[in-house]
Amino acid sequence: MPEGVVIHVEQVRFRDLDPMGHVNNAVFLTYLEQARIAFFEQQGLSVGLEDMNLVVARVEIDFRAPVRLGQEVEIAGRFGTKSFDFEYELTVEGEIVADAKSVQVAYDYGRGEPVAIPPEWREKLSGVPA
Amino acid sequence: MPEGVVIHVEQVRFRDLDPMGHVNNAVFLTYLEQARIAFFEQQGLSVGLEDMNLVVARVEIDFRAPVRLGQEVEIAGRFGTKSFDFEYELTVEGEIVADAKSVQVAYDYGRGEPVAIPPEWREKLSGVPA
Amino acid sequence: MPEGVVIHVEQVRFRDLDPMGHVNNAVFLTYLEQARIAFFEQQGLSVGLEDMNLVVARVEIDFRAPVRLGQEVEIAGRFGTKSFDFEYELTVEGEIVADAKSVQVAYDYGRGEPVAIPPEWREKLSGVPA
Amino acid sequence: MPEGVVIHVEQVRFRDLDPMGHVNNAVFLTYLEQARIAFFEQQGLSVGLEDMNLVVARVEIDFRAPVRLGQEVEIAGRFGTKSFDFEYELTVEGEIVADAKSVQVAYDYGRGEPVAIPPEWREKLSGVPA
Repeated sequence: MPEGVVIHVEQVRFRDLDPMGHVNNAVFLTYLEQARIAFFEQQGLSVGLEDMNLVVARVEIDFRAPVRLGQEVEIAGRFGTKSFDFEYELTVEGEIVADAKSVQVAYDYGRGEPVAIPPEWREKLSGVPA
Repeated sequence: MPEGVVIHVEQVRFRDLDPMGHVNNAVFLTYLEQARIAFFEQQGLSVGLEDMNLVVARVEIDFRAPVRLGQEVEIAGRFGTKSFDFEYELTVEGEIVADAKSVQVAYDYGRGEPVAIPPEWREKLSGVPA
Repeated sequence: MPEGVVIHVEQVRFRDLDPMGHVNNAVFLTYLEQARIAFFEQQGLSVGLEDMNLVVARVEIDFRAPVRLGQEVEIAGRFGTKSFDFEYELTVEGEIVADAKSVQVAYDYGRGEPVAIPPEWREKLSGVPA
Repeated sequence: MPEGVVIHVEQVRFRDLDPMGHVNNAVFLTYLEQARIAFFEQQGLSVGLEDMNLVVARVEIDFRAPVRLGQEVEIAGRFGTKSFDFEYELTVEGEIVADAKSVQVAYDYGRGEPVAIPPEWREKLSGVPA
């Protein structure tokens, strides 16, 4: 479980809900994605497609409690510079609603294969407490 | 075009974008939906499923300019109490990106048919500048 | 209302539903989008990003009946070559659930402005009954 | 890795793609959801909200290869009756694009807590090769 700082707060949309009246499981991965984008932006790495040749290689997520309309989801994250791993903790008013891990890899779309993380990324991220 | 007040500000998510790199046309209807929910909440009408036996009968929307990641969409709205119509104007940093109209009807799911707007709704909404 | 042929059949997904238990209004625009892509593909115009510098300028849609999980939505369409308009009729087991119109424009992303429809598109589409 | 049978084939929608031009990571969980629904339906367990008081407690997924528009994703699954686990293998034209596991729990929304799997479910599923 990360003791990381809150890197993003996401507003639940009506469209995030499913017929059970709470946020659909797939939508949590969108919340994680928003947290990663916020994190990179906070590190001075440009938002947008440039960032996004980081692709998601693996996600694991445990759902702890349902999330409902009108709630705000706080996402705390811890970032591992070595392996481009993230750990996330999602809370609503202090209650853990999910925790998750993801692994990202840098991907060269031209060559169609994973590549090493760009040096300037590694450098910018080196000051991040892992 | 509404000269209504801003009733909602929506954050663009990465997942809202499509391969053209801007917000997909269908997602604008989700932004309108969020604006309606915000509007009802601001009128003291409870958010949630209760509100939502208002169903959308018609939407028309003109797309004026692409919307991108990292942008905030301000939604100004004008509400017509008589017919439960909305008019919307969506702007990003003052530039109009879309305008839209929608018609809602109250729907009785038990009977499976449209019904008159509940009196308490009409009353609460009667003070709203139309 | 189009008397067009069925150009696409879409399977309702659980994720298409909202807390009211039927297909969310925004998702209908995704169904229209799938119908357009199917139409272009049927005309021998390549599917993918190439096609997609057609952008949606306007949509109007009337929702006639709720659509539920497990249902198939048949989309009949009529295409207007002159103005790049579409008319759609969406049915479930013969019942009309929505009808819609959309206007597309060709968009030059390099120049950031609408452009004339490419001649090869116009040519390929000229045989389409309008 | 499951050697299970193909329980569902999902059509990629344009809306499933993100700015990188391939299916967004979150959408894969929607594909898994569709496979689960198809599986239950094939076991004679009614589709709809009834099924859906099964909630997803955990998902882990490894993304192996990008999936693009126009592709069909075949989902083979293996179901563990004891723990309500699923294992999935997603392929496109024989190539593995992802594999995943999920854990479901039966959830009593009235009481707001997980409950034992209903006997009639367990019975119906007992003939399923685990």
